Amino acid sequence: MTKTVDDLEKKIGKVPGVFKKLSETDPDLHQMILKLDHYIWDDGALSSKTKKLIAIAIATSMRDQHAIKAQMAGAKNLGVTKDEVEEALRVAYLLAGMPAYVNGKVIEEEIM
Amino acid sequence: MTKTVDDLEKKIGKVPGVFKKLSETDPDLHQMILKLDHYIWDDGALSSKTKKLIAIAIATSMRDQHAIKAQMAGAKNLGVTKDEVEEALRVAYLLAGMPAYVNGKVIEEEIM
Amino acid sequence: MTKTVDDLEKKIGKVPGVFKKLSETDPDLHQMILKLDHYIWDDGALSSKTKKLIAIAIATSMRDQHAIKAQMAGAKNLGVTKDEVEEALRVAYLLAGMPAYVNGKVIEEEIM
Amino acid sequence: MTKTVDDLEKKIGKVPGVFKKLSETDPDLHQMILKLDHYIWDDGALSSKTKKLIAIAIATSMRDQHAIKAQMAGAKNLGVTKDEVEEALRVAYLLAGMPAYVNGKVIEEEIM
Amino acid sequence: MTKTVDDLEKKIGKVPGVFKKLSETDPDLHQMILKLDHYIWDDGALSSKTKKLIAIAIATSMRDQHAIKAQMAGAKNLGVTKDEVEEALRVAYLLAGMPAYVNGKVIEEEIM
Amino acid sequence: MTKTVDDLEKKIGKVPGVFKKLSETDPDLHQMILKLDHYIWDDGALSSKTKKLIAIAIATSMRDQHAIKAQMAGAKNLGVTKDEVEEALRVAYLLAGMPAYVNGKVIEEEIM
Repeated sequence: MTKTVDDLEKKIGKVPGVFKKLSETDPDLHQMILKLDHYIWDDGALSSKTKKLIAIAIATSMRDQHAIKAQMAGAKNLGVTKDEVEEALRVAYLLAGMPAYVNGKVIEEEIM
Repeated sequence: MTKTVDDLEKKIGKVPGVFKKLSETDPDLHQMILKLDHYIWDDGALSSKTKKLIAIAIATSMRDQHAIKAQMAGAKNLGVTKDEVEEALRVAYLLAGMPAYVNGKVIEEEIM
Repeated sequence: MTKTVDDLEKKIGKVPGVFKKLSETDPDLHQMILKLDHYIWDDGALSSKTKKLIAIAIATSMRDQHAIKAQMAGAKNLGVTKDEVEEALRVAYLLAGMPAYVNGKVIEEEIM
Repeated sequence: MTKTVDDLEKKIGKVPGVFKKLSETDPDLHQMILKLDHYIWDDGALSSKTKKLIAIAIATSMRDQHAIKAQMAGAKNLGVTKDEVEEALRVAYLLAGMPAYVNGKVIEEEIM
Repeated sequence: MTKTVDDLEKKIGKVPGVFKKLSETDPDLHQMILKLDHYIWDDGALSSKTKKLIAIAIATSMRDQHAIKAQMAGAKNLGVTKDEVEEALRVAYLLAGMPAYVNGKVIEEEIM
Repeated sequence: MTKTVDDLEKKIGKVPGVFKKLSETDPDLHQMILKLDHYIWDDGALSSKTKKLIAIAIATSMRDQHAIKAQMAGAKNLGVTKDEVEEALRVAYLLAGMPAYVNGKVIEEEIM
């Protein structure tokens, strides 16, 4: 079945613009990645919501501005609360240090 | 209230040996870090179990052997299943690439 | 068309054991990732050989033992020479520092 | 032989401003680094062009905005095409995850 | 004894805004982290000044814009000179590559 | 003036084996890197000893086993004490998280 970016945005909230453009420049790769993303983001042993919190914490630990923004932008749609994000960021603080936490907090203040 | 490593191990499962030794070499710092760890690992907006899954995914994304082992070693005590770890590692695959996932899987096969 | 690990190993040389096991535990995901890997590793604007050198340099820059071994193990099959690996590692030295280069060299001495 | 930044820019395309200033503040160090850079960037077992693609992929995998810009800015001068950069970024996607790829693509869209 | 952000700023120079807000949203955690920070930043086997130089070099090696700015902003208050920062950045260059050094230098030019 | 590995080991304590071999396989590059290393490690605005502590903290923050070992192996020769290393590792703890500190401590226990 053909997967669309809209389907994925319903699931994870926000898809980076550069990825959307791939649907025109390389529809085969675009479709492969969409299917893979759908498959991994689906509710399973963990809910999509828990996976989103994991993704936010990873992006924060890696101090990746683009990734933190993309992950947080989709969080509310999945029912993630600001308190839950805060606690996920605190785990990032333990495992990756205060500056990782600061990277996450600065974007959390803007977005959530 | 004085916090002990035993209390923390009940909560998060396993504390690295080098941290335990800190109780002898610098009891003040040891106590401060224990209190902080307890505070952040406690059930709150997220359960300790969800935080453990987040920590496993962060350690895997950062490809840190010591951290992956320490986090996974404590996972079962918190009721984390192998299927849940697998799904957390897949989020790490999306956010940090196949080699990050492989780092996590190699240790998962040994421990869980 | 169904893709096999053997096909991929012909193309990129070596596939981590933990990924091979995925064919039993989750054949759908295994197949999706194989298709994606095949698609990206294929000769295109860059040859598979050049992509392999890029992958070696990335793994070295990220100081990821598993990834360096997996990438170098497959290099000879693609016609990559030790001199070419050496020059790729030197770019990693410029971009990621002497210790990144050392990580790559230690494994290069064992494998190539 | 004295090496100049101009020589190096002919070879690799663009040298960060902060490095250029080093020629005034510490000409000895500036000269040592220039010689080393020239030596490593020169055509050898790999062409300067292939090394540039490797450097772009490393910078992208490390999600380093400054480095991605500096490396891509010099790519066209070496005859690197947008299609070749795209394929190098896809190897970064496999080894370092979608967000690494996004970091590279955002800058690629601006520069190339 | 209650620790204040002002005390800490006297010691390390500058505390990120998002951390200051924690005093309102979670005064217990704020206090725990302040105590820990004070304890580690205090003059001991190494002076606060040497620790600041170490922190600048770490932040630069990790290419973390927020952390480099936060650490450098407090450096002058501790008597750190621009020449000392320059030499700390050069160690980062050796261990983490030219782009790490460039990340540090760009912010050093703005702040110090 | 020709620089030797022995000179450098007197200065920084230990040079990785793979770098020593470069003196046979590529004496020109070996010499360039030796000169650069000498230049940067020399006493200047910061002493070689302070630079060594900075290098240990960077290697620890980057969780690079090879680099931590290489840097710590040379520390005693420069008069660095175990207490000083401990405090440098604590700065790494603040900036890069507990697992970074654990990476450093495990090797510190073996070597120092």
